[in-house]
Amino acid sequence: MSAEVNASNAAVFEAPAEASDRPVGVFDSGVGGLTVMREIMKLMPKERIIYFGDTARVPYGNKSGETVTRFSEQIMRFLLKEDVKAIVVACNTASAYALEALERDCPVPIIGVIVPGAAAAVRATRNGRIGVIATAGTIASGIYPREIGKLNPDSRVLGKACPLFVPLVEEGLWQDPVTREIARRYLEELMNEDIDTLILGCTHYPLIQGVIGEVAGAGVTLVNPAYETARQLEILLRERELLSPEAPGLGNEPQYRFYVSDMAEQFKSFANAIIPYGILTAKKIDIERY
Amino acid sequence: MSAEVNASNAAVFEAPAEASDRPVGVFDSGVGGLTVMREIMKLMPKERIIYFGDTARVPYGNKSGETVTRFSEQIMRFLLKEDVKAIVVACNTASAYALEALERDCPVPIIGVIVPGAAAAVRATRNGRIGVIATAGTIASGIYPREIGKLNPDSRVLGKACPLFVPLVEEGLWQDPVTREIARRYLEELMNEDIDTLILGCTHYPLIQGVIGEVAGAGVTLVNPAYETARQLEILLRERELLSPEAPGLGNEPQYRFYVSDMAEQFKSFANAIIPYGILTAKKIDIERY
Repeated sequence: MSAEVNASNAAVFEAPAEASDRPVGVFDSGVGGLTVMREIMKLMPKERIIYFGDTARVPYGNKSGETVTRFSEQIMRFLLKEDVKAIVVACNTASAYALEALERDCPVPIIGVIVPGAAAAVRATRNGRIGVIATAGTIASGIYPREIGKLNPDSRVLGKACPLFVPLVEEGLWQDPVTREIARRYLEELMNEDIDTLILGCTHYPLIQGVIGEVAGAGVTLVNPAYETARQLEILLRERELLSPEAPGLGNEPQYRFYVSDMAEQFKSFANAIIPYGILTAKKIDIERY
Repeated sequence: MSAEVNASNAAVFEAPAEASDRPVGVFDSGVGGLTVMREIMKLMPKERIIYFGDTARVPYGNKSGETVTRFSEQIMRFLLKEDVKAIVVACNTASAYALEALERDCPVPIIGVIVPGAAAAVRATRNGRIGVIATAGTIASGIYPREIGKLNPDSRVLGKACPLFVPLVEEGLWQDPVTREIARRYLEELMNEDIDTLILGCTHYPLIQGVIGEVAGAGVTLVNPAYETARQLEILLRERELLSPEAPGLGNEPQYRFYVSDMAEQFKSFANAIIPYGILTAKKIDIERY
């Protein structure tokens, strides 16, 4: 019996997994990327997903391109060891600074959240005046104006760094007068420039979409790149014939696996507030070793 | 001439530096520890100081004890390579979680900011009711109640984590209605408990001491562990005969040197707003290699 089990295990290990059965890797500096994972889960319920949140080094938004790129490369190496079939950089700052470098070294398809967000904004705008709110790093990188300019050179893009939004979201002040007051200050410049479209250029911001929408007013379309990114991923997987043909069966490992670099318990409770799936475990790994 | 210069250089390199001539090492997760460095500079103007801010991995306040300890050990190794004669852990979260581990391995005297802050609070209180505001990590560690309890078992210590204070300080809202509103919420519980002494248990908080003092009211004594830490350092250096006998001469390296793990330029401008010294350079190092 024991020999049979071993032989059968060996056979499983030797057979290369069908590419389409392998999981999608999604990563972020922390918990924000779960808003992207949530959209992927909704759109492609058959896919297995591995999520990594770099909770030991969060946030990325106030750090340099060089540092964010080094961190992102470590995470890519971790996800590749987990045999992912594609990678989603579910963090605007990492997409802004690191995607180009990652693409050079990545043997599987990889997408970020910027290009999908830019495309959705260009489709949504009527007057060509697009606002972007994001971390200091994403704004400083200039990537949204660059990507939007490629799609529509006539559009005018106005960026505003909003460093307090992430801590306000993480403090749970999703519907709070303080968050509204801070939003009013951050958005004032953009509203004076008569934008009609506003990109939520940080994965935390959809969680305070209500307050941001109130301050921006009904005339402004909010663009959440998370949904658009999930759609782009679906198109990509279909093109490469990598879409999972069926949901993972019972008895396999969980469909969704969560890894972090620190604070696994706290991650779990925050994550359970964001995504419609009872997260039972989040495993801590030492990302600096990758 | 050239031979003479070489010979003289060689003699300098061979002679071991007098212990008292060596610099003091001060470290923090980022810029906050500069409020401690500022007090050391005022109290001991003859000392050379090396400051390290871990700006690639800031903040520490929302991370685990294990992670904060690993980060702190890397920094200690860096400072020891720079031949410091003593180390000041100028970060409450690192002092709370890592000081004990650091003390075990550190060949030079090392002090944190918690014990000095606890001692000052015990001296200041009249009714024995002491409030502590700090990061989530420092509060969770329970170190302030523990250290205060050793000095005065009858005192009652009330802690409150204030995660938004650090981002508000870093956003420059040092005198702002939003900061006042957040302070009012954070302090409400403590004020209801009739504290008469409040420890600013995070090195960023002295920068919003004005707002905190207004909210707490004139009946509450604010304790800034930075000043007390500088005094403890002076006592320690005197005991060990490590006080620098004179200010470093002209022609030597700068009296104050600044190292960071990221964002050297931004650090420089923030630092110049905190300490009375024109910081000309901050050097970036890869702290994960230590």
